[in-house]
Amino acid sequence: MKLSDIAVQTKSQLIFPSAPIEVTIRGLTTLALAQSGDLTFITNFQYRDEVATTKASAILTAKAIPGCHLPQLIHPNPYAVLAQLGQQLHPVTHSFTGQSPLAFVDPTASVAASAILYPQAYVGPRASIGEHAVLYPFAYVGSDAHVGEGSVLYPSSTVMERCKIGARCILHAGAVIGGDGFGFAPTKDDLLKIPQMGTVILEDEVEIGASSTIDRATYGATTLCHGVKVDSQVQVGHNATVGAYTMLCAQVGIAGSAKIGSRCIAAGQAGIGHGISIGDGTILGPRAGVVQSITKPGEYMGMPPVPAKEWMKLQFSLKKVPDLIKKIAHLEAQLEKLQAGT
Amino acid sequence: MKLSDIAVQTKSQLIFPSAPIEVTIRGLTTLALAQSGDLTFITNFQYRDEVATTKASAILTAKAIPGCHLPQLIHPNPYAVLAQLGQQLHPVTHSFTGQSPLAFVDPTASVAASAILYPQAYVGPRASIGEHAVLYPFAYVGSDAHVGEGSVLYPSSTVMERCKIGARCILHAGAVIGGDGFGFAPTKDDLLKIPQMGTVILEDEVEIGASSTIDRATYGATTLCHGVKVDSQVQVGHNATVGAYTMLCAQVGIAGSAKIGSRCIAAGQAGIGHGISIGDGTILGPRAGVVQSITKPGEYMGMPPVPAKEWMKLQFSLKKVPDLIKKIAHLEAQLEKLQAGT
Amino acid sequence: MKLSDIAVQTKSQLIFPSAPIEVTIRGLTTLALAQSGDLTFITNFQYRDEVATTKASAILTAKAIPGCHLPQLIHPNPYAVLAQLGQQLHPVTHSFTGQSPLAFVDPTASVAASAILYPQAYVGPRASIGEHAVLYPFAYVGSDAHVGEGSVLYPSSTVMERCKIGARCILHAGAVIGGDGFGFAPTKDDLLKIPQMGTVILEDEVEIGASSTIDRATYGATTLCHGVKVDSQVQVGHNATVGAYTMLCAQVGIAGSAKIGSRCIAAGQAGIGHGISIGDGTILGPRAGVVQSITKPGEYMGMPPVPAKEWMKLQFSLKKVPDLIKKIAHLEAQLEKLQAGT
Repeated sequence: MKLSDIAVQTKSQLIFPSAPIEVTIRGLTTLALAQSGDLTFITNFQYRDEVATTKASAILTAKAIPGCHLPQLIHPNPYAVLAQLGQQLHPVTHSFTGQSPLAFVDPTASVAASAILYPQAYVGPRASIGEHAVLYPFAYVGSDAHVGEGSVLYPSSTVMERCKIGARCILHAGAVIGGDGFGFAPTKDDLLKIPQMGTVILEDEVEIGASSTIDRATYGATTLCHGVKVDSQVQVGHNATVGAYTMLCAQVGIAGSAKIGSRCIAAGQAGIGHGISIGDGTILGPRAGVVQSITKPGEYMGMPPVPAKEWMKLQFSLKKVPDLIKKIAHLEAQLEKLQAGT
Repeated sequence: MKLSDIAVQTKSQLIFPSAPIEVTIRGLTTLALAQSGDLTFITNFQYRDEVATTKASAILTAKAIPGCHLPQLIHPNPYAVLAQLGQQLHPVTHSFTGQSPLAFVDPTASVAASAILYPQAYVGPRASIGEHAVLYPFAYVGSDAHVGEGSVLYPSSTVMERCKIGARCILHAGAVIGGDGFGFAPTKDDLLKIPQMGTVILEDEVEIGASSTIDRATYGATTLCHGVKVDSQVQVGHNATVGAYTMLCAQVGIAGSAKIGSRCIAAGQAGIGHGISIGDGTILGPRAGVVQSITKPGEYMGMPPVPAKEWMKLQFSLKKVPDLIKKIAHLEAQLEKLQAGT
Repeated sequence: MKLSDIAVQTKSQLIFPSAPIEVTIRGLTTLALAQSGDLTFITNFQYRDEVATTKASAILTAKAIPGCHLPQLIHPNPYAVLAQLGQQLHPVTHSFTGQSPLAFVDPTASVAASAILYPQAYVGPRASIGEHAVLYPFAYVGSDAHVGEGSVLYPSSTVMERCKIGARCILHAGAVIGGDGFGFAPTKDDLLKIPQMGTVILEDEVEIGASSTIDRATYGATTLCHGVKVDSQVQVGHNATVGAYTMLCAQVGIAGSAKIGSRCIAAGQAGIGHGISIGDGTILGPRAGVVQSITKPGEYMGMPPVPAKEWMKLQFSLKKVPDLIKKIAHLEAQLEKLQAGT
């Protein structure tokens, strides 16, 4: 791609070190890895010194770098440009085409003509696979389940019976959609299994990371709304709902019946308790542990969570407690002396 | 099913809004989702307002609801009734019958005639599969392993060599039984692998959630006793034992050689350290982190754990520490003044 | 093996209760499980009473046990001897030999003659499988990926396209190498996927536990250096690097771009934040949460981490805070009285 075309397409400004020149961009990578023909980028001004030594042919940045020796592509949201260009320069490809006779397709299933079935994929009774969907080896689609148009199921990802996967979703390797929710009725002698009769619904453009598990509802459906992005090893319990464009980072756990708003972010290892509600736009820091509903938008840390800015100060204060204990003992002794003196 | 039969079978009391009528129950679901012909339920009196608007034909409850317009089925443990009826009204079914020629069965393996083998299941040398057991696609049973009568291995669940799965167990998708325990001997230059020669034993009626991992013992067997229920993404380390009817919720981690009693509950993300013992009936709250053995039954929270009732108060107190620091400084200054004055 | 040969081979000292005798060792197990012909061991002097009742024929120990009735094998690092002997007495075996015609191998792939392919393994286009490598059923090796000499991929382990697995690596069941890193560019209306163009490199002798996930780099490679050992359910984010011989215990989470030194240990459920550096030889206790880089070697606990020795004391102090609050209120009251009196 020509750099000038990229500028037009991404609505970026172009600044040249001296006279404008045309540059052909073949790749996109970091300052350190870039070679001639690559567009590189800087999103963190900490790395500004590396700009001088990069071998890239042009640089993407949010703010013009004074005196930079490279043509600069200026855009207020460089990450968005990275995403857009990355998709064009390095499009996702699949090594298999067509529908392998080594895939198992139940005769009552419906598979679109343009769908790709790798060898050893499995499509159960009455399941339906949309146009341009891709099932890698060992992907499993259970009976009466649906995989929407353009969705990709990577190896050993599992869609259990009756679950619905929207269009353009991605299930990474080992993701499990629709395992049973965890519901048991304790009796004097036993733990009776409460049948998990519901399903899971992933709306369009939902991405589920490797080995993440989205449990089937007891009744109704565990639902991940449009554009939800889930990292690796995340657990979403039965009957939970996750609002549109919310991001759940690695190892987050969401208990049953929780209701997460839209455009939230839960950082790594955060946990949200049973039945808890989290308002739109809430940000949970790493390992935040939510034990009561959050209605006020903002950034939270800790368990129970406090506003993120307070958390760090609070941790700093807590380290002083052993010292406070000593100070109080000292104060008590002094006061006693004073009292004895009066 | 007739409501009157349900009452007899479950030993529930029946109360009608006016004259007794017969109702046929076809399904079981929540207040909001229920349609005519459904039995609904209320287990949390928070939802009592929804009772008025439900379309259900009858309601299950622990305590009679005064003035309710629906026939009421009264039982002290409604969850147990939900479990029992759910199993009858929505029995688990498997979409495949028989033993697929596309499954791989080693000639030295023994598979009961009534067992179901989906296409692409794998049964290794000398493995044995009990009557009515079900192996979904990509289920793996290693050499000399055993799967008991009526147990179900969902897609991509794995039973490594020599492990023993009891009767009526359930392994959800991606569950791994018998991966190597984590044991290495550090030397000056290396980390020598300590062979994990033991196995895993799941006794009868054990359920393992999606992507949970139960590691193989170094010697002997990692053991989950009768009726243990394990949620998704739980890790049980080598040589651990988990007592009968204990429940481990999502993302719980149990380190090697830990001994968990029977009828315990570990809530989501709780952790139990190496070699630690937990007495029967102990309840660990969400993310409790057990670093010393617990002998006194009760409910615990925090790391190290404290009785759950204290934990919330303690967290509340800790938030006051920055304020305490100021107060102490103030006290010190005042006291100094007084001392200077005397 | 003869005990005298074991002593020579492992450079251990042999002590007999009375006159030296020759003992043939056939197995290796714990004090409680040992039978005649077994070598047992004691690594924790807590279990010293069990020595008297063991049925073993000899015992391995770091320090001579006075008055022991068994021949003693004395070695300063008994774990290393356990590893070495265990590998000899219980060598890893694979139940299949050769390359099954039921495995899928793309015609452009290259599989060494001595490699073992179980039925239903998958090798993609241009992938290469080294000598003596073993692919279990449902193991997936994507296009252009490489599996080094002697590496073992257990069932349902996945190596995504272009990732490189070194020699003598072990991927336990359900491990996923090269799922997409978690990168999205938020825009006003969307979350644009930032293509994850990089790969994963596992150097030689790396072991990855069951259901662990090592995410693909955005650019370049997520790298686990020589001899890194990873337990079950560990997540390593995109672009992270883990130094040689570092051990990551179960459920550890390492965020993107983190740099972990060599010979570190991260205990269960520890978390390391985005872009954070951890120096060589650092030990993180269970659930340590690293939010700032650690440059000083040592053992750390807590979030944010403090030296491990301080942590326990600090937790003990924190329990006194409710009491401190009362004491301070009392001091304030007393002081007021004094001030009123003067």
